[in-house]
Amino acid sequence: MTDIPGIVITGASGRMGQMLIKTVLASDKCRLVAALEREDNQWVGQDVDAMIGGQATGITVTSDAVEAFAKAQAVIDFTAPAATVAFAGLAAQARAVHVIGTTGLSDDDLKAINAAARHAVIVRAGNMSLGVNLLVRLTQKVAAALDEDFDIEVIEAHHNQKVDAPSGTALMLGEAAAKGRGVSLKEVSDSGRDGMTGARKKGDIGFSAIRGGDIVGEHDVLFAAAGERIVLRHLATDRAIFARGALKAALWGQDKSPGEYDMMDVLGI
Amino acid sequence: MTDIPGIVITGASGRMGQMLIKTVLASDKCRLVAALEREDNQWVGQDVDAMIGGQATGITVTSDAVEAFAKAQAVIDFTAPAATVAFAGLAAQARAVHVIGTTGLSDDDLKAINAAARHAVIVRAGNMSLGVNLLVRLTQKVAAALDEDFDIEVIEAHHNQKVDAPSGTALMLGEAAAKGRGVSLKEVSDSGRDGMTGARKKGDIGFSAIRGGDIVGEHDVLFAAAGERIVLRHLATDRAIFARGALKAALWGQDKSPGEYDMMDVLGI
Amino acid sequence: MTDIPGIVITGASGRMGQMLIKTVLASDKCRLVAALEREDNQWVGQDVDAMIGGQATGITVTSDAVEAFAKAQAVIDFTAPAATVAFAGLAAQARAVHVIGTTGLSDDDLKAINAAARHAVIVRAGNMSLGVNLLVRLTQKVAAALDEDFDIEVIEAHHNQKVDAPSGTALMLGEAAAKGRGVSLKEVSDSGRDGMTGARKKGDIGFSAIRGGDIVGEHDVLFAAAGERIVLRHLATDRAIFARGALKAALWGQDKSPGEYDMMDVLGI
Amino acid sequence: MTDIPGIVITGASGRMGQMLIKTVLASDKCRLVAALEREDNQWVGQDVDAMIGGQATGITVTSDAVEAFAKAQAVIDFTAPAATVAFAGLAAQARAVHVIGTTGLSDDDLKAINAAARHAVIVRAGNMSLGVNLLVRLTQKVAAALDEDFDIEVIEAHHNQKVDAPSGTALMLGEAAAKGRGVSLKEVSDSGRDGMTGARKKGDIGFSAIRGGDIVGEHDVLFAAAGERIVLRHLATDRAIFARGALKAALWGQDKSPGEYDMMDVLGI
Repeated sequence: MTDIPGIVITGASGRMGQMLIKTVLASDKCRLVAALEREDNQWVGQDVDAMIGGQATGITVTSDAVEAFAKAQAVIDFTAPAATVAFAGLAAQARAVHVIGTTGLSDDDLKAINAAARHAVIVRAGNMSLGVNLLVRLTQKVAAALDEDFDIEVIEAHHNQKVDAPSGTALMLGEAAAKGRGVSLKEVSDSGRDGMTGARKKGDIGFSAIRGGDIVGEHDVLFAAAGERIVLRHLATDRAIFARGALKAALWGQDKSPGEYDMMDVLGI
Repeated sequence: MTDIPGIVITGASGRMGQMLIKTVLASDKCRLVAALEREDNQWVGQDVDAMIGGQATGITVTSDAVEAFAKAQAVIDFTAPAATVAFAGLAAQARAVHVIGTTGLSDDDLKAINAAARHAVIVRAGNMSLGVNLLVRLTQKVAAALDEDFDIEVIEAHHNQKVDAPSGTALMLGEAAAKGRGVSLKEVSDSGRDGMTGARKKGDIGFSAIRGGDIVGEHDVLFAAAGERIVLRHLATDRAIFARGALKAALWGQDKSPGEYDMMDVLGI
Repeated sequence: MTDIPGIVITGASGRMGQMLIKTVLASDKCRLVAALEREDNQWVGQDVDAMIGGQATGITVTSDAVEAFAKAQAVIDFTAPAATVAFAGLAAQARAVHVIGTTGLSDDDLKAINAAARHAVIVRAGNMSLGVNLLVRLTQKVAAALDEDFDIEVIEAHHNQKVDAPSGTALMLGEAAAKGRGVSLKEVSDSGRDGMTGARKKGDIGFSAIRGGDIVGEHDVLFAAAGERIVLRHLATDRAIFARGALKAALWGQDKSPGEYDMMDVLGI
Repeated sequence: MTDIPGIVITGASGRMGQMLIKTVLASDKCRLVAALEREDNQWVGQDVDAMIGGQATGITVTSDAVEAFAKAQAVIDFTAPAATVAFAGLAAQARAVHVIGTTGLSDDDLKAINAAARHAVIVRAGNMSLGVNLLVRLTQKVAAALDEDFDIEVIEAHHNQKVDAPSGTALMLGEAAAKGRGVSLKEVSDSGRDGMTGARKKGDIGFSAIRGGDIVGEHDVLFAAAGERIVLRHLATDRAIFARGALKAALWGQDKSPGEYDMMDVLGI
């Protein structure tokens, strides 16, 4: 079992951390070598299995990053900017792949991460889902292949607790479509259609936001012309896909040269 | 062939009139007895077949409504308010079923039509599609059966030339949902969702309008709760369905007592 | 809190039992009064909270049905035929509503349950989802309202471990459609379409089975005519809906006269 | 108007021929220079406008291919194999782009076409729809990017007169998926799922065929994994898209080097 990559999960007791631990434990392509938490976390010093229920892992939650990273080939990290910047340095020293799902990073944070990437592999993405990343790439390609006879609309559906519309992922898809067409999204974006709107303006990219129930996240990119339509659709039904995407990135990074990568690189498209 | 109902089509040379003529000619449950146009219309006095191409009907476009209605068991009428009010009186005198798809009728027009309905069968509807009418009825029933744990959203898609949003049919569906719940649509309607909207308000009925290509008309009524969703969907792919709905209404009305009916009555639901 | 119905969950330690307990605990319209298991079950005598994690309920898992039922206004029961028949008698004696989700009941079992229903309210259904039951009812109504110009197709999608096709619920929907049309499903069923099939036979009801990933269960009933389509769709995304349906049935039954009911009665459609 | 490409339509009086003529007449990027039919066709010598109704073109249907091709920059040809092979030679001599939508070509026919392509541009495709060709390409790429954790299913819907299942385009999509995965479709194809099928076999590519109404053609390629799905969808709602695809190919070919191309080349993806 020692020839498969050892993984450290940071923020181990959080919702995402626990999901990452379970995902690593369920895989036969890697093994869990450490579960990291802040020094003041209640779970430090306790068994991982007590925390997540079920499986006997023999691993104790620790707050010692240096020791944890020393035995790891990869660190999966969905925490907060300050912690992530610190981990980037430590992971680089340990020559471990650092997979970063942390959001809200400042330009300074990004610079620090970029510096660390000179010595080790870093994979960073705002959305670790394989499917969404693939959809973004496809959207750009299709938008580039089709002319403005195809009206582009991005339709997304989320649970009734979501406070913003359109979703960040919908905007990411809109950006990709605009990039494919060589236009600026800002100038062609049309969201919140309501009332006497007039005919649709050619070249616009429209957005619709559906809200209801506990929908995890669904995105359609519609390309509609006279007589035909293409739809690129992604449905997320379980938040575990973000954990699996991160793990895939960790394994992918094992034989890569130092540098900063994203999920597009991992997918190879 | 004389024992099947004879039909008059008004506004015969218009887009809808021509479609109605073709629909009547294609049916073996009725026959075309007259094609009516205004006195100044270029097609008056000419053969119907020259106008629509193809079939030999032996019928000449006429502007004489009295003579036309005298030989008819039904009049199908998608014209304008003033003409429709006049036709209602004439059809009642001829004891012909009057199927009205004309929109934009004033309260006075409706009163005049109502008066005519004392002597003859009138079927009137804003949308003659069987499917849409069925969807409206289903929407009300489902909204009444489900409580507010189910978020209701109406999503519609139309061609890129449509100037208003949401569509009239979407609003009709929203009204039906509100009625089923015993609330006023005005108070719960939420359309044009965009920006920092906050969490969805329980009990709201949301609307989304998608625009693209030449989509004839698609409507979804979504009922989304935790863990499950119901969707009632109607897709119109050919405007001929409005003609077929009108013809169905004309045939249905043959043995009914005088009175004013709608497509719900025709469908029997 | 004593004026809201007290609920007993049978088969408390099973997957469905635990889900039912959580559902009852999450509701403010009822309270958990007992969690029942067989005498030899490891959890008997232990706290419910140890079993399900989290909440302090103060309730100990018991194997004494008589005592449990005595303090209950309803029993929710997804166990096995023999147990369910016994519970039906005990629940009737306690005048508790008995909600039965148990499947595989023999004709003799059904007779015994029917006898118990003379003294108490019993709600029994093969599928406790509100949505699916509603869809079945709608399917029958729509099939009755539309003629054979509308081709009926039932399309279902399930996870890749499902061993049969079409799903039981798809067949239930097909039965409802056939009943609405006044035909026998056996004579019009067309599933497994493949190869040189010839044109679709008018009046047939077609079935398609999609398999992939971890899809919980999705069902479409398509009514397709020339120029328009109606789709009735149900999506199940969380098995908890079956628990919530059962709880709704338990609450609904509180003020009903003795007798055997199904989810259609609960929904009131 | 002489600086825009002149187009010849072969098989001018057929359903596809008439649609091609209308498409050319509706475009401002090309002009109709000839409408070709067989010597014995009733329309030869008559005005194109009599045949298609409406517009005054000043063009007479002809059976003289040599003269017709001499004034053309492109020939669009949806006829039969023997005619198409002859046209390929004539078009090459005239240095006109030859767009071939003819199906059922033998290996010998293909060789003859290939020989003609040494001297002129030929674009040939079994399906001229931009959207379907794009979908085929995307399907291959996505299948290559995702591993077997994603179950692939191809779902298609067509009108009730279609005699075969799955559709040719569905099989083309299945082939593309298999190619992307590096497997043979024959070995992994699973269509006509019905009865006790057992769990889905990993790596299989499933097919479902829905039939109803007058559906022109809809294709979904589903990639379903645990927790997420990607769907690539194409909807054809008007057969005119095949004519528009052919015209796009004719214009695209104007400045290309001699050779044989397909719609992938035209789309540039």
